[in-house]
Amino acid sequence: MNAYPQSVIKLIDEFGKMPGIGQKTAERLACHILKLPAEEAMQLAYAIRDVKKHAKTCSVCFNVSENDPCHICSDMSRDRSVICVVEQLADFLTIEKTGKYHGLYHVLQGHISPLEGIHPESLTIEKLLQRVKADHVKEVLLATNLNMEGDATALYIHKQLYVLGVRITRLARGLPTGSYLEYANTAIVADAISGRSEMLGV
Amino acid sequence: MNAYPQSVIKLIDEFGKMPGIGQKTAERLACHILKLPAEEAMQLAYAIRDVKKHAKTCSVCFNVSENDPCHICSDMSRDRSVICVVEQLADFLTIEKTGKYHGLYHVLQGHISPLEGIHPESLTIEKLLQRVKADHVKEVLLATNLNMEGDATALYIHKQLYVLGVRITRLARGLPTGSYLEYANTAIVADAISGRSEMLGV
Repeated sequence: MNAYPQSVIKLIDEFGKMPGIGQKTAERLACHILKLPAEEAMQLAYAIRDVKKHAKTCSVCFNVSENDPCHICSDMSRDRSVICVVEQLADFLTIEKTGKYHGLYHVLQGHISPLEGIHPESLTIEKLLQRVKADHVKEVLLATNLNMEGDATALYIHKQLYVLGVRITRLARGLPTGSYLEYANTAIVADAISGRSEMLGV
Repeated sequence: MNAYPQSVIKLIDEFGKMPGIGQKTAERLACHILKLPAEEAMQLAYAIRDVKKHAKTCSVCFNVSENDPCHICSDMSRDRSVICVVEQLADFLTIEKTGKYHGLYHVLQGHISPLEGIHPESLTIEKLLQRVKADHVKEVLLATNLNMEGDATALYIHKQLYVLGVRITRLARGLPTGSYLEYANTAIVADAISGRSEMLGV
């Protein structure tokens, strides 16, 4: 298929490498870039360049930031006695957006998955243990995903932290707000039963 | 929300300006760029730069190309007596991909839509008329979208071309292959009846 000139094919290819972008969407995005005035299109190119130039990984929590330590680690108003452990950057944002958490973070940069060749040493677990030992950490909230890899990773970290006598918590498992029992998965309902909590009267 | 550093927020913004990319997807794409090695991420930035540098609009058919006239207009093996009129670049590709069409193209760069302030003069219709008059064009296939704006645009062009005595055709309207009558829209079935064709026996 040679309907497009070389530079456009290359752009479609590059868009197509992004997660969740198929051939059709990549073509639509490339057509959009073609239609845009050069100056506006270049804003995206510049933004990519600037991110790769300025955004660094925080040496403490492995979050992304333009400073090291990052804006969270260096924010003295945050509760420094709690560390929330997440698999990746996007998860950190999800937690931060809730506005319910005011402690520090630790980004593992993945999850344990022997099948994919990701072993505990590939993650930032060792650094997490050092932080817990060195700083006055009272609680570690394991906020890895609620799937097999996330659970395995949480379990592994739990084993390492247990001996340090720190409080170790995990995100609550249950039925998502707004869901109907009728359509819910058995495993999820089972989790919701095991994790049931006292209901406060009015 | 200040969870991300400035350069990342800017990148999310830029991705979010693309068609069909919401806030959530823009964040996912930005996180992907953050995770990539700088060299790979820059490939996308370079691809955008190169497209804006090399891709030009063909002065004959308004297609995009690295040459002027474009690779279609200068391809002497194509049938130069037919011009397929499309609204935009993406439509040209859709037609070209079928492999069923071997003539030339004319990209209108939009459709007539008084509500959006797009009048015939904003499109490349004048240039199309010049081409039909000057070259030995026998047929103009109006391949604008099969919606209100596309029909209005086709009708307008039809009126202009009619006096030139050229054959004017329109894409077939009917039921899409694989569809069930039961679920089809009344207007579509009506179109399929009006446009019915002789069935050839075996």
